[in-house]
Amino acid sequence: MSETKPLRIALAGLGTVGGGVIRLIDANGDLIARRAGRRIEIVAVSARDRAKDRGGDIARFGWVDDTTKLAEADADVIVELIGGSDGPALALARATLASGKGFVTANKAMIAHHGLELATAAEASRAPLKFEAAVAGGIPVIKGLREGAAANDIARVYGILNGTCNFILSKMEAEGRDFAEVLAEAQALGFAESDPSFDIDGIDAGHKLSILASVAFGTRPAFGAVAASGIRHILAADIAEAAALGYRVRLIGLAEAGPQGLFQRVHAHLVPVDHPLAHVTGATNAVVAEGNFVGRLLFQGAGAGDGPTASAVVADLIDIARGEYGAPYAMPAAELADTLPADSGDRIGRAYVRFTVADKVGVLAEIAAAMRDAGVSIESLIQRGRVGDGSVLVAIVTHEGPERAVAQALERLRGSASLTDTPLWMHILG
Amino acid sequence: MSETKPLRIALAGLGTVGGGVIRLIDANGDLIARRAGRRIEIVAVSARDRAKDRGGDIARFGWVDDTTKLAEADADVIVELIGGSDGPALALARATLASGKGFVTANKAMIAHHGLELATAAEASRAPLKFEAAVAGGIPVIKGLREGAAANDIARVYGILNGTCNFILSKMEAEGRDFAEVLAEAQALGFAESDPSFDIDGIDAGHKLSILASVAFGTRPAFGAVAASGIRHILAADIAEAAALGYRVRLIGLAEAGPQGLFQRVHAHLVPVDHPLAHVTGATNAVVAEGNFVGRLLFQGAGAGDGPTASAVVADLIDIARGEYGAPYAMPAAELADTLPADSGDRIGRAYVRFTVADKVGVLAEIAAAMRDAGVSIESLIQRGRVGDGSVLVAIVTHEGPERAVAQALERLRGSASLTDTPLWMHILG
Repeated sequence: MSETKPLRIALAGLGTVGGGVIRLIDANGDLIARRAGRRIEIVAVSARDRAKDRGGDIARFGWVDDTTKLAEADADVIVELIGGSDGPALALARATLASGKGFVTANKAMIAHHGLELATAAEASRAPLKFEAAVAGGIPVIKGLREGAAANDIARVYGILNGTCNFILSKMEAEGRDFAEVLAEAQALGFAESDPSFDIDGIDAGHKLSILASVAFGTRPAFGAVAASGIRHILAADIAEAAALGYRVRLIGLAEAGPQGLFQRVHAHLVPVDHPLAHVTGATNAVVAEGNFVGRLLFQGAGAGDGPTASAVVADLIDIARGEYGAPYAMPAAELADTLPADSGDRIGRAYVRFTVADKVGVLAEIAAAMRDAGVSIESLIQRGRVGDGSVLVAIVTHEGPERAVAQALERLRGSASLTDTPLWMHILG
Repeated sequence: MSETKPLRIALAGLGTVGGGVIRLIDANGDLIARRAGRRIEIVAVSARDRAKDRGGDIARFGWVDDTTKLAEADADVIVELIGGSDGPALALARATLASGKGFVTANKAMIAHHGLELATAAEASRAPLKFEAAVAGGIPVIKGLREGAAANDIARVYGILNGTCNFILSKMEAEGRDFAEVLAEAQALGFAESDPSFDIDGIDAGHKLSILASVAFGTRPAFGAVAASGIRHILAADIAEAAALGYRVRLIGLAEAGPQGLFQRVHAHLVPVDHPLAHVTGATNAVVAEGNFVGRLLFQGAGAGDGPTASAVVADLIDIARGEYGAPYAMPAAELADTLPADSGDRIGRAYVRFTVADKVGVLAEIAAAMRDAGVSIESLIQRGRVGDGSVLVAIVTHEGPERAVAQALERLRGSASLTDTPLWMHILG
């Protein structure tokens, strides 16, 4: 092996992922040195509480009390695993990149909000900036888009980006149970946070989607333009109805670049059973990219967890150790296009709409009339389920048409005494 | 955009893939320049017959009659799309790398046979050598292993590596038809070669597997140690029996690195329906890598065709244009371990064995006794199908045990008058 100097790492954050990175480098250090041509060595760490027992020997690393000061450590790359879109993580990122040191992070919120600023700073100081672990955990999907699919004009990128939601949806599907019950169980098992809204309302998936979109399309990160809803309002009956129609329900983050602008959404979708995403169950993540020459590429794997996330963090470090890195968003930050958000109303597609209605004469006619008046063509209508309060469920699948029409139909029905709950609208993945 | 000089390419071979590369660079050239920071320009081409009408304008490129001489073209990278493990392709590769120019190829046979020599030459002259398109067409799986999963000790890598076989098997499955019939149809449609043995006997998948194994395990390429059989002897009845047991039949290339050595095989397997590879249909390819931190990663996409293959070739060129490349096998060729092949007899697993037997008294007892005497524990035995000549099919699924025992049982039955055809042994993917 060549006698090249090690790549010296300073690590901010000693939680689950930080611990995973230490364990990984301990376990696979020799192998990594063979692959990278040099060792990767942790030289300093920082975390909130030095005294906390972490079960591993961290006394062998230098300790820095003030996390932001880690940027001044005698290291080549700072690895940030604190989290949070602003605060100490952002201060550390700015200080590190200003100093010309490399910066590797798993922080999707920070990259979604401040990625463009950080990439600009990194390019100005020619410092490596990498964030593979920020999207889809251990899956090398940033690399897959930035490099593997780099020869392609990407039409759209979409996937299952939140493991908690997919875990809940697959469990609802397998056991025929309702959302609230499964969420409570997932929380008890530690698969969902005690405040789960970041996950189940689609914010986390939105962060990841906006990062993917920038890398795929060469557009400026635009997290603010992501339309996100989540899975709170999905009933076991919706999943059963979807199954009867040949679909599975998945929370899909989808970004599309077109002449009308950049379109980004995170919504529950009906996914046809013959689509690979229909077979992604549990906490697994999966991302599809559609390129004009390569066709459909799928990347699938563990979207979270200390091992997979550490794998992605250290893959970034190996790229840096090898000197194989460049502009983080596939092209220089200054060249990213400032694209307007596309209007979802123009999108053509099929929809599933489920109404919760009072069990009385005339309700179906009222719904059908609203659809007709808005120009929505109905492919199928099923009245089947009944919920606790005596309400009845009516599920509609539309023919292809503009989303604007469905929105107008729902607007017409808003406030109707026939509806006992807000309708649930899911797109059908085409 | 920076005024960096273009990356100049000379292209050997103007068949389907060569034409795809030209079309891709024509279509996506501006986008590629934004991503790579410089243009990729074809400056010279070579093919067997200059006069042949290729439907595109190749007069704009320099022409070189003698393909080997293309190495002397005024170019930075030679792209080889001729094919063949030796002959002009190998001569061109050697001449190119000796001259210090970069070399990009889609030639799996050549890399499987001569990859170590070529990597050594490339490293000696510090020239880039890349072959993403040699494995699984458009899927960036070499990159996924070499870089994306580089932090992991990879336990095994396996997948669907031959689109022709998967097309035939999915068609047999969907339509309940036998191999010979579907093959003839695939040949008529151009999905299979007129001499299909390279594909259907597992040689092509074996080439790809041996390349994947080297990249994943850091072992020397050892195509000669790949045990390969194909799909010729699979009956529609085998696929139906597998389905009844909860499996789909797929041709799987699998490599595993363990203390007993390097294990590489290409055989038809029974894949559980809840495994992602069970849902890969048609000509699609898919590769799974299992790492000690990342867990199971899946890469899926088009395994062949001009567009996908061109996508991978040009992705390699973009890496080179960006200066983001290094040792082709993830570590320097001199460090690749010279690992002995592992003995398949030691492998523990479950097996499906189908016997074609005469419809007479005592046959089941004879088979059961051979299994017992070899120490094979039977999980299920089904006698169901009947083939044209009046023979009966007996399908056995074994409990977990060493493959040696199954081999011994089959050895005991060899030459038995009860068997009217050679038994078919398929491994069950665990």
